[in-house]
Amino acid sequence: MRQRPVPPELAGIVAEIAPPARADAAAVRAHLDDLTKPPGSLGKLEDLALRLALIYGDPPPPLRRRAVLLFAADHGVTARAVSAYPPEVTAQMCRNFAAGGAAINAIARAVGAEVVAVDVGVDADAESLGILDRKVRRGTRDFTYGPALTREETLRALHVGLELATERAASTDVFVLGEMGIGNTTAATAVTVALTGAPAERVAGPGTGISPDAVARKASIAANAAARVGERADALAVLAQVGGLEIAALAGAVLGAARAGRAVVVDGFITGAAALAAVAMCDAARGYLVASHRSAEPGHAIQLEALGLDPLLALDMRLGEGTGGALALPLLEAAAAVLREMATFASAGVSGARGGVRV
Amino acid sequence: MRQRPVPPELAGIVAEIAPPARADAAAVRAHLDDLTKPPGSLGKLEDLALRLALIYGDPPPPLRRRAVLLFAADHGVTARAVSAYPPEVTAQMCRNFAAGGAAINAIARAVGAEVVAVDVGVDADAESLGILDRKVRRGTRDFTYGPALTREETLRALHVGLELATERAASTDVFVLGEMGIGNTTAATAVTVALTGAPAERVAGPGTGISPDAVARKASIAANAAARVGERADALAVLAQVGGLEIAALAGAVLGAARAGRAVVVDGFITGAAALAAVAMCDAARGYLVASHRSAEPGHAIQLEALGLDPLLALDMRLGEGTGGALALPLLEAAAAVLREMATFASAGVSGARGGVRV
Repeated sequence: MRQRPVPPELAGIVAEIAPPARADAAAVRAHLDDLTKPPGSLGKLEDLALRLALIYGDPPPPLRRRAVLLFAADHGVTARAVSAYPPEVTAQMCRNFAAGGAAINAIARAVGAEVVAVDVGVDADAESLGILDRKVRRGTRDFTYGPALTREETLRALHVGLELATERAASTDVFVLGEMGIGNTTAATAVTVALTGAPAERVAGPGTGISPDAVARKASIAANAAARVGERADALAVLAQVGGLEIAALAGAVLGAARAGRAVVVDGFITGAAALAAVAMCDAARGYLVASHRSAEPGHAIQLEALGLDPLLALDMRLGEGTGGALALPLLEAAAAVLREMATFASAGVSGARGGVRV
Repeated sequence: MRQRPVPPELAGIVAEIAPPARADAAAVRAHLDDLTKPPGSLGKLEDLALRLALIYGDPPPPLRRRAVLLFAADHGVTARAVSAYPPEVTAQMCRNFAAGGAAINAIARAVGAEVVAVDVGVDADAESLGILDRKVRRGTRDFTYGPALTREETLRALHVGLELATERAASTDVFVLGEMGIGNTTAATAVTVALTGAPAERVAGPGTGISPDAVARKASIAANAAARVGERADALAVLAQVGGLEIAALAGAVLGAARAGRAVVVDGFITGAAALAAVAMCDAARGYLVASHRSAEPGHAIQLEALGLDPLLALDMRLGEGTGGALALPLLEAAAAVLREMATFASAGVSGARGGVRV
């Protein structure tokens, strides 16, 4: 990932975010090796336990108060036929979130998480949607030939996420990032191309289900738009040029959660683009991120590599809304419980490996 | 997987097990495609939802009453130095299960599952362990030069699992298979080699953490022992020759759960060997199995392929006890909730893909 300058408008907030350090990593690793199991045998759950110990302390508390921050917005680039669904589906799905009938509602209930759905830029009357109204404008401009947003609009959307995460942190142990926005895989592709330097044809994918020809068109639109972003531009400028209102709000939510000392579970490709933008603004936020699943969208693997994250679930999902993130929540609680509740070899009177070494 | 005859002693039970068919697969797939999400976008969660609909009906009920059936036993083959841990660890870990300090206790609490730990063949006084006493004998014989168990002992151990699953089915929505037994990856290797025909050097792995030389010794012991199993022998004979008391009990638990119409979550390599044995006895039991994670143990992939199962979690775990299986339980509930609670495009007033086809 290319180094990007800190956006001057966010310098104060960025200065308040430190890498998670509420435990000593070597001491946590020693604690994990002392527990009654072969060293390392819980695999990635041990890496996750370490991350949670750094964020919350060792042992981490129960992580039972769970919220999905789901930001919805529309995209002017849908004029270029980059989605399998018509743009009015964004508003329709917001009403579905409000009624509790979407996938994220069912899954969040199954794992005991609250869904906080927020209109940050849907192209419909806010009051018709039944979700939290934080609308900045009715969708982005088509970024094919010019910027999607002004810098000021982008900053306002980012502050929506930042403030919501900050407000909710007092009653929330862990956040999941979710989103809805017809056309937003095109914006996420352009953001990922601009921030990672990866070629657009490796990042663009079928999204909700478009043909190979449409994927190629999407890649070309994203590549041309991303090329307008200067090498030294900050991530706020990237989001203004080719991003989306929900992507900016999600980046703000990452900053707000990190500042409040809460883990943030990244879902798929759109939230991955937002996490990239947040980390490009504030590298210290990186340690608060947890990857949930590996999306079927090809650019997601590129984002995960840039973020240094390894996902926990292998579900071939590509829905968004925070569904993959919500499904990972019980794994976070299990990883925390391992540190909190397991006996050590000494306390349980269990013999270690023969001679303490491999036979 | 080679075809194996039904063990005559189990013919009556096997006849009572039918493939899951409480819903019509095509109707469930149509229901899934009707829900407010791009078709197939929930990936493997949709395959899981289909499996649960076949087992429980469409929509499946909440799957909240969860039990880990954890069988513990010792293995005579530990005399061949096939484990990194001394054999007394089996009994010590049983006391740890009873005290609630093992990984499976912490993880099961985190996901709301009960741990039912059962001594089916630990080489220690049953009353000293604090877990359910269903001991058949104190460990298997070393199977390096002769059978691990008599056919009668194997059948008794199998009935322990069969009866426990049958008894518990009335108060349990879904079962997880778990196990403890120092030396049991060697037995599971031999069972897998005998039932799948895969070469032992591809099946044997480091288990709790042994050196490459010890893995090679383990493979050679397993290959030689598996070679004593006749081509036409039934799976009970396979388990008697090279299995373990906990592996036989787990195979019985699969049959009992399938007969009672309950899903059975397979954990890692040991429970995978037991699932192979159960399916070799009763192919109709196959549809009740759900794979949880892909174990770091190399033979697990061979088992999953033979069982036609695709795991949900990517955690690089290799602990056993049912830990991977327990971690998958919230995914089962989420898959059931998708069918039970999601709105359809029509009911939510959401537009489908343009023209119903990909653009």
